[in-house]
Amino acid sequence: MAKTKKTPRPKAQTPKGFRDYFGAEVAQRTQMLRTIAGVYHRYGFEALESSGVETVEALGKFLPDVDRPNEGVFAWQEDDAEGKGDWLALRYDLTAPLARVYAQHRNDLPTPYRRFAMGPVWRNEKPGPGRFRQFYQCDADTVGSGSVAADAEICAMLSDTLEAVGIERGDYVVRINNRKVLNGVLEVMGLGDEAQKADVLRTIDKFDKVGEAGVRELLGKGRLDASGAYIDGVGLSEVQAEPVIAFLTSKAGDTAGTLANLRAAIGDSATGAAGVNELQQMADLLDAGGYGPDRIIIDPSVVRGLGYYTGPVFEAELTFEIKDDKGRPRSFGSVAGGGRYDDLVKRFTGQEVPATGVSIGVDRLLAALHMKGRLTTDTTGPVVVTVMDRDRMADYQAIVSELRSAGIRAEVYLGNPKNFGNQLKYADQRNSPIAIIQGGDELANGTLQIKDLILGAKIAETATQDEWAERPQQFEIPRDDLVARITALLAEQAK
Amino acid sequence: MAKTKKTPRPKAQTPKGFRDYFGAEVAQRTQMLRTIAGVYHRYGFEALESSGVETVEALGKFLPDVDRPNEGVFAWQEDDAEGKGDWLALRYDLTAPLARVYAQHRNDLPTPYRRFAMGPVWRNEKPGPGRFRQFYQCDADTVGSGSVAADAEICAMLSDTLEAVGIERGDYVVRINNRKVLNGVLEVMGLGDEAQKADVLRTIDKFDKVGEAGVRELLGKGRLDASGAYIDGVGLSEVQAEPVIAFLTSKAGDTAGTLANLRAAIGDSATGAAGVNELQQMADLLDAGGYGPDRIIIDPSVVRGLGYYTGPVFEAELTFEIKDDKGRPRSFGSVAGGGRYDDLVKRFTGQEVPATGVSIGVDRLLAALHMKGRLTTDTTGPVVVTVMDRDRMADYQAIVSELRSAGIRAEVYLGNPKNFGNQLKYADQRNSPIAIIQGGDELANGTLQIKDLILGAKIAETATQDEWAERPQQFEIPRDDLVARITALLAEQAK
Repeated sequence: MAKTKKTPRPKAQTPKGFRDYFGAEVAQRTQMLRTIAGVYHRYGFEALESSGVETVEALGKFLPDVDRPNEGVFAWQEDDAEGKGDWLALRYDLTAPLARVYAQHRNDLPTPYRRFAMGPVWRNEKPGPGRFRQFYQCDADTVGSGSVAADAEICAMLSDTLEAVGIERGDYVVRINNRKVLNGVLEVMGLGDEAQKADVLRTIDKFDKVGEAGVRELLGKGRLDASGAYIDGVGLSEVQAEPVIAFLTSKAGDTAGTLANLRAAIGDSATGAAGVNELQQMADLLDAGGYGPDRIIIDPSVVRGLGYYTGPVFEAELTFEIKDDKGRPRSFGSVAGGGRYDDLVKRFTGQEVPATGVSIGVDRLLAALHMKGRLTTDTTGPVVVTVMDRDRMADYQAIVSELRSAGIRAEVYLGNPKNFGNQLKYADQRNSPIAIIQGGDELANGTLQIKDLILGAKIAETATQDEWAERPQQFEIPRDDLVARITALLAEQAK
Repeated sequence: MAKTKKTPRPKAQTPKGFRDYFGAEVAQRTQMLRTIAGVYHRYGFEALESSGVETVEALGKFLPDVDRPNEGVFAWQEDDAEGKGDWLALRYDLTAPLARVYAQHRNDLPTPYRRFAMGPVWRNEKPGPGRFRQFYQCDADTVGSGSVAADAEICAMLSDTLEAVGIERGDYVVRINNRKVLNGVLEVMGLGDEAQKADVLRTIDKFDKVGEAGVRELLGKGRLDASGAYIDGVGLSEVQAEPVIAFLTSKAGDTAGTLANLRAAIGDSATGAAGVNELQQMADLLDAGGYGPDRIIIDPSVVRGLGYYTGPVFEAELTFEIKDDKGRPRSFGSVAGGGRYDDLVKRFTGQEVPATGVSIGVDRLLAALHMKGRLTTDTTGPVVVTVMDRDRMADYQAIVSELRSAGIRAEVYLGNPKNFGNQLKYADQRNSPIAIIQGGDELANGTLQIKDLILGAKIAETATQDEWAERPQQFEIPRDDLVARITALLAEQAK
């Protein structure tokens, strides 16, 4: 053979933070993406697929998840003749590419442009348990509409989508907040400079974790955190901090009450009033469409993404209980988020283009359905035709050809046929419902042996010795009846 | 506003060699992938989805396309604390990741392992017209079976797949060749060293382009190519070169004839005889399965990939004529290729694991169907509900909600409603079948105006002034009859 230099063997490993998906996992995701695409399409959205690679210049830095500030992108420099090509990167979400696409193709696109996109995105961040560096997103956005009706529609669609994929009403809630209300609150606080404003925003983002008391401490003198470290506060007086607290805790028993509390929190700020009016309009539109507070609510405690979006902000939370790592009950949490971001296209064109949209975390949603036992993908393997005589491979292939032509999933055993036990082990590992056997006797008689592997597994669990000896799970059929008998047996097994 | 440093605007451009796919293009590909997955699944293959990113170490360098030697991968080095992390890269095909997956998970996978995979792959090569640096592949492979029945099955499946996606029988052919036959030919030529063998292999790869006479010259003294450059030959005598020529031109009118010619070409080489026997077995198995020479043929002139694979090699070619850039007729060409590669997993484990598989170029196949006018995706846009009174947005949303609940694709116009003409222009741009209008009069009367945009377009093309004045394309319906009337109209339009 060829003389090759001896090199050490490569490691067969996914890179850190990446994983492989097998069989049913892939089928379940494909099925979910198809269902979601169906809802998005019915709402008038058009598919868009951009490539995984963008220029770093076009991507910019627009990550919404402020609680993960260290995350980055996978990037590299193109080789060109002079060795100084463009910097390219893998997209980290589907929104930044949308902004680029809209700016690039805007003369050919309708306005408003309603598009959906689904596919993997990549984050160059430290991998952790259950946190991967490639994951699926499934987005829908309306670009070119400043109307709050566009925001309301996205929320209604999100609600319909969750129900379409199998989350029952009552097991989720879409929460809506509005950045303008927060801006109004900041306004009436009379904060000195932008730096202090940024500090307050950062503190608000911690509301999810530290609660009202924690935010009070962090807006004031500071706080001893769980690890024992002392976190410096923003240094506001209690009176100064009050509007923020009022904003974050303004959720009342009904929409009218919440909106009244918000009006109080924003004082005489015009921006704040505009924000409250937007929330009011969204609530009215959603109500008219039949999306009541059992599905969609105004909730000013939603802070995730509030620093990123410019108007309405929404989040879908699954409300059913799961157990955390330590066995304590907690709600499953967020599976989708979005909002209005009117500045994103402006980066490219200089013109402000209003836009609003939502991103569904498909993998988290799949995990939730898995926990609820609501993933119903068929994991039945193929009918396996065993090989008793390797010289008669053509006969066995003819059997599977007939089955496949009838739409039945089937295959010939293609491993080494010498050990028949291995063939049955293989059928078992594939979760096959039926094995077909044809040795010399069956060939001579024009018959086939059929093994009902599902009945076989049941009998193996419960049968007495006598029942076992009867072997109802194996029987002979005429070769000519192949398709009819296998079809009937599969139908019976599926009952 | 915040003080931000003035930076130049980023360019809204896909990176060189990448592109965006819109609406119907995305839907057509999704549909095709689904159809292919259906066939693969029926044949007993299981889905696998690995990530787009692999370690460079795991990927190795196994590109089959020997006519593109300069191609590479997109790669970058991970940042770690010491600044010397792993080198990562985007996958350039779906075969190298399969080898890694199989080596990594082999204890949990059945043997043989039959898997299919579909998704984008990336090539860091010079982009050209119609050649993109990200494109879709759709692979099926059987790992762990050395049986030629596995190869035959892949060819049968390829044939079924092409027909399933809309390529009619007669418009394609799957050609089969075998590397072992070529090895036998090289053996009987008594070539001196590996370097000369490699030269001969490289020459054979040019058979597609330069034909028999060209290969004769290149195996001998050399050849003046079309650009006027002189290409040095391998330096064989005519007698020495004869077996290669015999091999390449051995295709006869039927399988028996071709195999007889091949047996002559390989002389007394045992390896060559093994190759011919494999071809014979494949032909027999395929014949038994009903896959005759109208679909699958033995064709020793298939040389693409022959240097890469270790046994059977196959290629699917679309045989219908298209016009090339200069308007000359030529056949569409290859859309899929594959073969047996028994060494790929060995890189990782040291153990030889036989494997065979096929890769379908989905984008090329879509282009072919497009040329044949066989892509039937529905490009009808949504029903558009226009906005006559922006304060009644809730009413318009209620209309679309009703339509969507009935499964009808519909949306409210969400742009600036001031100019009604723009709303109709939008409906036109969206390819909407119907526009719905409700002004103050219609509201008072409990009615809706319906514009049949498809009939409207027809009338606009052909109508006399009188016909035009009748305006059958616009009529009034009771608001309560919304769903029934729109459903009926859409059904009528679809006729």
